[in-house]
Amino acid sequence: MSKKPVIGLLGGGQLGRMLCEAAGPLGIQIAVLDAENCPAKQANQNNLHITGSFKDPEKIKALAAQCDVLTVEIEHVETEILEEIATKGIEVPTADGKGTTTKKVPVHPSWKTIRLIQDKYQQKEYFAKNGIPVAPQMAIESGNAQLDSLREAGRRFGFPLMLKGSKGSYDGRGNFKVTGPEDFEKVAEQMGDQPLYAEKWVPFQLELSAMVVRTEDDDGNFKAVYPYPVVETIHEDSICTKVFYPPRNVPEDVTERAQKVASDVIASLWGRGVFAVEMFLLPDGQIMVNEVAPRPHNSGHYTIEAVPQMSQYKAQLYSILDRVPLERGLNLIPRVSSSIMLNILGGADATSHDRLVELADETTDEYADVYVHLYGKDSKPGRKIGHITATGFSSVNRLSEITSPLIRCMDEIRLERIGSDHSATVSQVAQPKALPLVAVTMGSDSDLNVMSAGLKILDEFHVPYEVRITSAHRTPKHMMKFAEEKAAEGCKVIIAGAGGAAHLPGMLASEVHIPVIGVPVKASQLDGMDSLLSIVQMPRGIPCATVGINNATNAALLAVRILGVALPEYAGRMRDYQRRMETEVLAKDRKIVDAGWRAYVEGM
Amino acid sequence: MSKKPVIGLLGGGQLGRMLCEAAGPLGIQIAVLDAENCPAKQANQNNLHITGSFKDPEKIKALAAQCDVLTVEIEHVETEILEEIATKGIEVPTADGKGTTTKKVPVHPSWKTIRLIQDKYQQKEYFAKNGIPVAPQMAIESGNAQLDSLREAGRRFGFPLMLKGSKGSYDGRGNFKVTGPEDFEKVAEQMGDQPLYAEKWVPFQLELSAMVVRTEDDDGNFKAVYPYPVVETIHEDSICTKVFYPPRNVPEDVTERAQKVASDVIASLWGRGVFAVEMFLLPDGQIMVNEVAPRPHNSGHYTIEAVPQMSQYKAQLYSILDRVPLERGLNLIPRVSSSIMLNILGGADATSHDRLVELADETTDEYADVYVHLYGKDSKPGRKIGHITATGFSSVNRLSEITSPLIRCMDEIRLERIGSDHSATVSQVAQPKALPLVAVTMGSDSDLNVMSAGLKILDEFHVPYEVRITSAHRTPKHMMKFAEEKAAEGCKVIIAGAGGAAHLPGMLASEVHIPVIGVPVKASQLDGMDSLLSIVQMPRGIPCATVGINNATNAALLAVRILGVALPEYAGRMRDYQRRMETEVLAKDRKIVDAGWRAYVEGM
Repeated sequence: MSKKPVIGLLGGGQLGRMLCEAAGPLGIQIAVLDAENCPAKQANQNNLHITGSFKDPEKIKALAAQCDVLTVEIEHVETEILEEIATKGIEVPTADGKGTTTKKVPVHPSWKTIRLIQDKYQQKEYFAKNGIPVAPQMAIESGNAQLDSLREAGRRFGFPLMLKGSKGSYDGRGNFKVTGPEDFEKVAEQMGDQPLYAEKWVPFQLELSAMVVRTEDDDGNFKAVYPYPVVETIHEDSICTKVFYPPRNVPEDVTERAQKVASDVIASLWGRGVFAVEMFLLPDGQIMVNEVAPRPHNSGHYTIEAVPQMSQYKAQLYSILDRVPLERGLNLIPRVSSSIMLNILGGADATSHDRLVELADETTDEYADVYVHLYGKDSKPGRKIGHITATGFSSVNRLSEITSPLIRCMDEIRLERIGSDHSATVSQVAQPKALPLVAVTMGSDSDLNVMSAGLKILDEFHVPYEVRITSAHRTPKHMMKFAEEKAAEGCKVIIAGAGGAAHLPGMLASEVHIPVIGVPVKASQLDGMDSLLSIVQMPRGIPCATVGINNATNAALLAVRILGVALPEYAGRMRDYQRRMETEVLAKDRKIVDAGWRAYVEGM
Repeated sequence: MSKKPVIGLLGGGQLGRMLCEAAGPLGIQIAVLDAENCPAKQANQNNLHITGSFKDPEKIKALAAQCDVLTVEIEHVETEILEEIATKGIEVPTADGKGTTTKKVPVHPSWKTIRLIQDKYQQKEYFAKNGIPVAPQMAIESGNAQLDSLREAGRRFGFPLMLKGSKGSYDGRGNFKVTGPEDFEKVAEQMGDQPLYAEKWVPFQLELSAMVVRTEDDDGNFKAVYPYPVVETIHEDSICTKVFYPPRNVPEDVTERAQKVASDVIASLWGRGVFAVEMFLLPDGQIMVNEVAPRPHNSGHYTIEAVPQMSQYKAQLYSILDRVPLERGLNLIPRVSSSIMLNILGGADATSHDRLVELADETTDEYADVYVHLYGKDSKPGRKIGHITATGFSSVNRLSEITSPLIRCMDEIRLERIGSDHSATVSQVAQPKALPLVAVTMGSDSDLNVMSAGLKILDEFHVPYEVRITSAHRTPKHMMKFAEEKAAEGCKVIIAGAGGAAHLPGMLASEVHIPVIGVPVKASQLDGMDSLLSIVQMPRGIPCATVGINNATNAALLAVRILGVALPEYAGRMRDYQRRMETEVLAKDRKIVDAGWRAYVEGM
């Protein structure tokens, strides 16, 4: 490490800026090729930068001359010059300054990968050949042959079909939906004379994306891929505007399959780095790859805060510098339960987005943090000038509620920009309700009489809770689903009351990993002894914290003590409560001493 | 927000650099006054910076001319010029460029605070006057009167006593321990002719620190203070080298008091910003303020990752720009369970520290993350050139174990630097004794047979625990004292086993505010029913979580579930345990299907 490697970066937009932000504290040097005051250079001042276009071969060579490895923040670069630098090398002065020598500079990801990805049609042909699921497609001829070619596509794929430009477009620009043969005549006007291909219409349910890190050795031998979690992406006006981790209402087995597909895609490419794999989820649960970006990606911004130990930017640095320990790999497990990324797009005027940024300061709450990232770019309508990441310690749905004012504000700014009438179109978003820390449930509403004493205690201690009726015997599936949901939502304690053959508390304890408190409710026989023993005598392995018969008060107080283990606020309230109890009893003692027991009884 | 405010920063070292790193994504402009390629400017390129010394009045005025507020990253600045800029203003060109006008630029924290803090003697006199606990001190005369003055100090404070320079020193430099009158003659040689004061020797147990955010309105009226958690700081060679959050083995009531003292100190000062309050914890539990730094501080670096929603740097920006919402305040609750900060100090040669940085990559584990911060400074022996922060999802003692290779490496680099012989001096990094999270107690050693099943579970889940024998009837006072101590030490759960008239669990529950789990131990009569009912049928107000008769296993598992509420590491292990149980039973089911029940019975 004495001679620190220098990374040469083609392009200094927001992706380069965030790469520089990650590199700074790590002491990693980055030389940026882009305009003087580009976003990346603002966050990284050094004397290695080069001013110019990242498409200019001479500038790229000048950059390579002072770097140990080259990488890109955008795939629309000249791969010929990258190939030349990586394979033939460039002339650089010798150490003594008297002659020149040839220096090869590795390019990561490989120029081969970048070249393949630049042609979206070839990209998907390659994936299909490698067994990756993609939509059926065919190349469209140009010139006079175009019409026949379009007709052939219509026959093969039916309508609607998707017409796409193979090169140079991104963020969904340059796509044209052909609804029937009557649209053929609009093709030239819409798409110009660029190379085109047709794709079978994919009626997807939603879009997923996963970032994947790829490593290989210096000889280009594949080492490993490491996928980040799968996220749900929302596109508006052909731009990704929102990202949800985890995807809302998508079963885990689907996200696991998607993660596997993403890993397979990236394993099939060349070079080191992070890659985005954008996918469609079809209604039948099928995953289909849409396209790949060979670089950090909008759908991976959330990792800066959600996977702070290894954000997509840090992973990009570690992989291209070959600093990923082979045995250990990369730990890409999020350190939060949920995350939402919202793009800040330029509004109708240069300051339209200011209120969104201000609102972000107001949106942080006890269970969620909100982070603003501005890119140092001038605002223009629709331009990506920043993003906001929210992270939560509860479910993604709960985090959506917390961030709903931000989403509403984004919607308003968008509608102003595209000139729509607010009141008609802005979706009403519900006010978030406090996430329950305690779930209280009982087998029957007849238990409510007993349980309500505990609910009053929870109110007294300001504990957010939820009350439900779930019977172990009458609604066994409902009960299990309830338990599973509560545990997943971040609920901390469950209180369950039941009487007779009182199975509810124990069954809930079997389903979840959080503490369950059982309240034996006295039923019509045996004075509650049946309830007590059914709850307390659990088999070894599954504990149920049992309190006295009908003593819902103590169940709630126990829940407060347990919350106090994690949240000092509740420990403090419990201490106050105990002090008050003590004072009350001492006052009674004083009274009985002062008044005598006869007067005391009379006054009772 | 359309006209973005510019912050002028005096000094561009590592504190300024990390302030710039926080400001960049927030779109906050900082103009730095310091050398051309100082650490702060490396992370923030813009055309507002000024090259020069932050002690040069003309440069400070030039900085003020283009800023909306001034702040400092170091307290050793000229407060006269800051006072002038804030109160009288500076001449700046009018908007039309034809004349000049006077512009006052606020300084935060106030020049008054900085001036007070520059004189350590005056600082503490002021605190003492405001009821803040500080060590007794007296000013020492200079010149011929010095010897008499020293003798007076010896009489007043006894020996040893501490002699300190009032001005210009920091990081504990410029202190001299006077062990007796025989040291008086060395004073001139050690301390030169700077202004001195003597301080009563404080035999502290350990050093604590807390960052505090202070807000006030534009007229200088106090709004609020927000303290961060208290941390333990370790100093070596008069430099802070390690920080532990939370402090190891310090009872919670002590850290709460320290936090309160820190808030009081900062409330007594002037201006906005973050401040460090360094304190001593005395053996009798007393807190004493050592000194205050009016800026971000080494002991607050851990907040970058541990309080990511509002690090000390972000808090500095928010407070000086008056962006702290009054009603909401600042949420300064750490998002991790524990954190350790280790300074990277320059070693014997320029690359000595490289192996520490490399080791950091290897140290991350499933329950702990490790972050490297390098400051872009050349390495010099003993110089602060970076720091490492570890964050954990378990106890600080556990995190100390995880980071012990890093601490060992730091120690080795230090010993190389100071030229010691390793083998002799490297302190065996004493494996810190894990503070018990669970206390297990029983009324009699005859219960140990039953209770040991639970202890094995605690071992299996890596729970630090303590086992004690405390009888409610034979040692009532011992029992109460035990309960009180455990609760104060930060123990999270008590498990108590008892049989017959089993009062121990309930009595413990009466004494503490943390959850108590009772294990009814079957005694000689009534098959354990006496024990069960004595434990479970607690009066309303004092809950005792009861498990089945003799079921110490479930008591321990319940304790793990409760720990999981606060420490995700235990929740994760509980999920694994439940999955393993499921797999085991399913395997048995398969076996009985495959082999038939007769063969199954024979094989049992």
